[in-house]
Amino acid sequence: MSAPEPLRDPASLRRLLSPRSVAVVGVSADPIGFGARSISNMKNFTGPVWAVNPKYAGQELHGYPCVGSIADLPEAPDCVLLALPRTGIMAAVEACIARGAGGIIAFASGYGETGLEDRIAEEEVLRETCRAAGLPLVGVNCLGIVDHVLKAGVTFMPEYPRMTAPPGGVAITSQSGALGYALMQAAERGFSVCHMTTAGNATDLDVCDLAAYQLTMPECRAVALAVEGLRDGRRLALLGEAARKAGKPIVVLKLGRGEAGAAAAVSHTGSLAGSAAAWSAAFKRAGMVEVEDFDALLETAGLFAKAPRPTAPGVAIITPSGGAGIMAADHAEAQGLSMPQPMPQTEAVLRAAIPDFGAPRNPCDLTAQVASNPASYDACMEAMLTDPQYGCAVIPVVYSHHASTQLRMEQLRPYAAKFGKPLIIAWIPERLEGPGVEKADSVPELIVFRSMRRLMNAIRLWLEHYGQVAPGPVAAPSGLGAAIASLPGGGAVLMEAEAKALFARVGVPVVEERRASTAIAAAAEAASLGFPVVLKLDSPDIAHKTEVGGVALNLADGPAVEAAFAEIMASAKRHAPAARLDGVLVQRMSQKGMELILGARRDGQFGSLVLVGTGGVQAELWRDVALDLAPVSPARAEEMLRSLKGFPLLDGFRGAPKADIAAVAAAVSAFSVLVAEAGEALQEAEVNPLICGPWGCLAVDGLVRCGP
Amino acid sequence: MSAPEPLRDPASLRRLLSPRSVAVVGVSADPIGFGARSISNMKNFTGPVWAVNPKYAGQELHGYPCVGSIADLPEAPDCVLLALPRTGIMAAVEACIARGAGGIIAFASGYGETGLEDRIAEEEVLRETCRAAGLPLVGVNCLGIVDHVLKAGVTFMPEYPRMTAPPGGVAITSQSGALGYALMQAAERGFSVCHMTTAGNATDLDVCDLAAYQLTMPECRAVALAVEGLRDGRRLALLGEAARKAGKPIVVLKLGRGEAGAAAAVSHTGSLAGSAAAWSAAFKRAGMVEVEDFDALLETAGLFAKAPRPTAPGVAIITPSGGAGIMAADHAEAQGLSMPQPMPQTEAVLRAAIPDFGAPRNPCDLTAQVASNPASYDACMEAMLTDPQYGCAVIPVVYSHHASTQLRMEQLRPYAAKFGKPLIIAWIPERLEGPGVEKADSVPELIVFRSMRRLMNAIRLWLEHYGQVAPGPVAAPSGLGAAIASLPGGGAVLMEAEAKALFARVGVPVVEERRASTAIAAAAEAASLGFPVVLKLDSPDIAHKTEVGGVALNLADGPAVEAAFAEIMASAKRHAPAARLDGVLVQRMSQKGMELILGARRDGQFGSLVLVGTGGVQAELWRDVALDLAPVSPARAEEMLRSLKGFPLLDGFRGAPKADIAAVAAAVSAFSVLVAEAGEALQEAEVNPLICGPWGCLAVDGLVRCGP
Repeated sequence: MSAPEPLRDPASLRRLLSPRSVAVVGVSADPIGFGARSISNMKNFTGPVWAVNPKYAGQELHGYPCVGSIADLPEAPDCVLLALPRTGIMAAVEACIARGAGGIIAFASGYGETGLEDRIAEEEVLRETCRAAGLPLVGVNCLGIVDHVLKAGVTFMPEYPRMTAPPGGVAITSQSGALGYALMQAAERGFSVCHMTTAGNATDLDVCDLAAYQLTMPECRAVALAVEGLRDGRRLALLGEAARKAGKPIVVLKLGRGEAGAAAAVSHTGSLAGSAAAWSAAFKRAGMVEVEDFDALLETAGLFAKAPRPTAPGVAIITPSGGAGIMAADHAEAQGLSMPQPMPQTEAVLRAAIPDFGAPRNPCDLTAQVASNPASYDACMEAMLTDPQYGCAVIPVVYSHHASTQLRMEQLRPYAAKFGKPLIIAWIPERLEGPGVEKADSVPELIVFRSMRRLMNAIRLWLEHYGQVAPGPVAAPSGLGAAIASLPGGGAVLMEAEAKALFARVGVPVVEERRASTAIAAAAEAASLGFPVVLKLDSPDIAHKTEVGGVALNLADGPAVEAAFAEIMASAKRHAPAARLDGVLVQRMSQKGMELILGARRDGQFGSLVLVGTGGVQAELWRDVALDLAPVSPARAEEMLRSLKGFPLLDGFRGAPKADIAAVAAAVSAFSVLVAEAGEALQEAEVNPLICGPWGCLAVDGLVRCGP
Repeated sequence: MSAPEPLRDPASLRRLLSPRSVAVVGVSADPIGFGARSISNMKNFTGPVWAVNPKYAGQELHGYPCVGSIADLPEAPDCVLLALPRTGIMAAVEACIARGAGGIIAFASGYGETGLEDRIAEEEVLRETCRAAGLPLVGVNCLGIVDHVLKAGVTFMPEYPRMTAPPGGVAITSQSGALGYALMQAAERGFSVCHMTTAGNATDLDVCDLAAYQLTMPECRAVALAVEGLRDGRRLALLGEAARKAGKPIVVLKLGRGEAGAAAAVSHTGSLAGSAAAWSAAFKRAGMVEVEDFDALLETAGLFAKAPRPTAPGVAIITPSGGAGIMAADHAEAQGLSMPQPMPQTEAVLRAAIPDFGAPRNPCDLTAQVASNPASYDACMEAMLTDPQYGCAVIPVVYSHHASTQLRMEQLRPYAAKFGKPLIIAWIPERLEGPGVEKADSVPELIVFRSMRRLMNAIRLWLEHYGQVAPGPVAAPSGLGAAIASLPGGGAVLMEAEAKALFARVGVPVVEERRASTAIAAAAEAASLGFPVVLKLDSPDIAHKTEVGGVALNLADGPAVEAAFAEIMASAKRHAPAARLDGVLVQRMSQKGMELILGARRDGQFGSLVLVGTGGVQAELWRDVALDLAPVSPARAEEMLRSLKGFPLLDGFRGAPKADIAAVAAAVSAFSVLVAEAGEALQEAEVNPLICGPWGCLAVDGLVRCGP
């Protein structure tokens, strides 16, 4: 696996994505044709716009000058929109190259998304042609772009000129054109957006390239990204790095989280964590903020675009309605947010202002009486926002009043500016639009959510995002090179002894064991290891030893070992007559402890993944696992361990001794470095169980499947 | 605990809640006063409306005739709205009684919600006065009511006359006034509501009485209910019964699900399930549909108001956008909904109509091309809706087009009528209102959700609601009366032997045991039971036997029993010198099997609750429990068992023998009948563990705390 393709230089996309001139090819006189609808979306754009159609050369079309061909354009166009069917695209592309266009947008469908081989090939030729000429392409099978700063609505989607919200800090990038435009329509109800792109088939530019351009726009404060899939998932890390450098968060939604991904998870450990979990791990690693559904994408991006860094984790809830306060507290608690009670001096102010049927606490129920008394209201707001425990204030608005809600929003704005804390409006009325909420959505001081659930979820994401530490490089264990060099390739499967030997090379503690090919040798090895011991069948042909009677536990002395040897061999011959039997492995019975599972597999999108989970016979019932991209540092490995519901089993559960968590984390990290650095050479690996106790940890069994 | 207070006869509330005449007491000339705002909400009401204020007697106020006092009203008013402060309420109530009013509404705050004793008493006097006179009261501390059929906006909340949506099938009842009105505001954007009530302090009428009235309205098809708490939670069952008889579903949201409830859970089993779970169980038992947040309440009620019974479980997804189809499939899968592929004849129609870049399957991606071709569109819609696998169709609308979306909604309506299957619009655009979606919300044939998450969740609730069977009476075990009679009361705690004897009386199998007060007697009892045996300390003063060294397992013969007896006695004396030691219980070692926990506790709201959970030492980690109101039938007990993540442990997990599930369910049911019928006499009970295997089940330890 070579390095991922670097992101396209944003400067090279400026003419295409923030055009100063636009040509629309394929405009007919029919006002509902794709070309006509597109050109009518340029109504408020101030640069030159041309229609291209030989039938109307020299005339006006829908109010714009029409030329006969791309070659006839009076100047080299920044952005050329091809409102043409697939069959017309290649010739137009050649003409755009010749005329020095800054880039093209193609709506046409019928390429690779059909699954037909010739169409896939046709799309590849298109990509190579554009790339060879340095002509960037948005599409195919997309809905175009919008630069809302320039009022360039380069899309056939209807009624862009209705989107009168002032340009603001959120840029939208969506793989699905329709969903991108669905988000963009928020600009019809006051939500401030600066830019929108739709990647479609991503023939040339994918969502990572497009979002990386948006990060360079001065207006952009956060990106809302909707992605279905990527040719190379590792480009997310490049985009994440660009966002980190720009200091602009990316809020992301993964569409297509269902069965297709889960079906790809074949190994035992893989089956515990489908590929949606791999995407989540990749987003997290890239420093992106993942939301759980489409409903949350734009609102959460709005929070990140408008909110400064948190100054404290506490959430203040200031409400005119007791019911809304309860609702806020329910959702804050469900998200694990802290709602500290006001400090004494804060509480004193509240007590003086709030009548006895209100609540001078947090949630602070001002009552409608205080809400309509400017002096009391101001006193309470000042007191709560001065209290240093609170990093943000949630302000439920419980009804929409056409005559006054807008004024209330204006009154709130100065508080945000004065205290540098986000004021987050929980918009409760089922009247979803209207002047009050549109005002709040359109100004930079106020943040609006139309759902208490999403609001509290977004606050949690905001606190987590600014609390995270970017992962540094992970140290390589000393035996790493030798371990990787020892992998045989050819799709070989390493059974227990070889797998553990491999893990031992990178420093994972493994149970001590000896090979023995006779009963007498087994008894001798057992005596030298110390009783009690375990015997396990040693055969390159048998993966599931228990099922052929190939394991004997807790053997107390030499005669017991010799008898067990004979039984194992007899049983294995009976169950698997054709298998090669090399003898047994003799192991000391391991100490008691908590059982973990470690797993790793290659993922088509993200390279090597590492998983740690609570083991034991009931593991598949509880599916208690943590997944990340490999490698993970010991610190991150410990985080993964602590995220398990079963973590208390390592941490002194019901008076049991505590395991050496640092040793366990070190073993997880070493295992993850091995699988990451081995790359394609190591397709799957498993340690099951890793037994953990106060004395450290010990890999008792393992399996590895090598690459080709 | 006596029987719950019956629901108020709805006929007795007709004058108050669907008034033909309204008097507003306390209207001043100030247009923003509560009285003035209320009377201005009567603008479209056709019956007589009077203002009452001695200052303006004989004049007009805000366009309505004003009389000097309630006594001066020209006829007995149906509904009297008291827009007065608390101090004016009692006198007005007396006047209303004298004038023969049909009922009163009181906004006034400052009663019991202050927590002050004199105010609580004042509210009680108000209640008793109203009840003695047969004058029903909405409030205090409420926002009034709206009869949207009569256009009676008997509320001070602003701008009711803006709510121009035609009256439709959803009735709203909310404890919180502000939240009720927030829901009601949906009628400003086309959503059809017929009635709204707010209970406030529920001084007289609570949400159950109010909703029960709404069920009798011919316009009402479903109730949306928001509840915070009830004086007696058992009234929910009465309301549920009324809804069942009326054939009208109740969709319910519980506010206040947080820590207060959890703090009430004190016993070990109680700590596994806070009181939000008890409310959920009560809603389910009452046949109500519980939603998880405020966002979902009205939309889900809209589905239940408009959708017929499901004819099939399959969900058809018919979309013009691939992205929206993926989003729909993600959420359907997350809800466990079935999305069967079209039958061959359906698929043939789709294949003929849909271009190669679309998807002639389910989700069915029509493409924008088919969506704009009426003949193809009709063919596909007919084919999908004819397919008997599908019980409903989800139709994503991905962008809002002012010029055409409303027409599209009109085109869809006949399909719903023709096929009798709900057409459910997934409204994706971030333009949340506008003519298209308002049309869809206001007509009876279309159902709208502005969230794919909520839409798919509501479909699941719809399928579950009509799939459920109302629970019948649960048979009483023969020993029930004797068991209850044996409870000592006085807050006594029954230790292991007595608790198990109690459970055995109602038919719960318990491990056989003998008491022995000497070592020799213990050995003799062990020999008669059969080895191996367990000895357990027998003391009325020691609940946690293990902690004082009071348990010895797996004793193989008489000498071992005698030695263990001596050790147990010595250890107990050392740890608890003051405790009375009666000797030991001798039990046969029980067979191996899965461990369950059974628990029961009294709940202040709902009476006795029963809980069953996966047991074993890790039980508190996995918190794998199912809770219900007691009693449960064996069939319901089996459902509870099957809902556990740990259920496979009973059902042949990894080749283990299957437990006798019918026997386990019978034991759970018998235990639940005991705790339910014992009522207050049994405060807490626990069986831990109940060991389950192919041979049945066996209660190995138990504890009971009696009532006063």
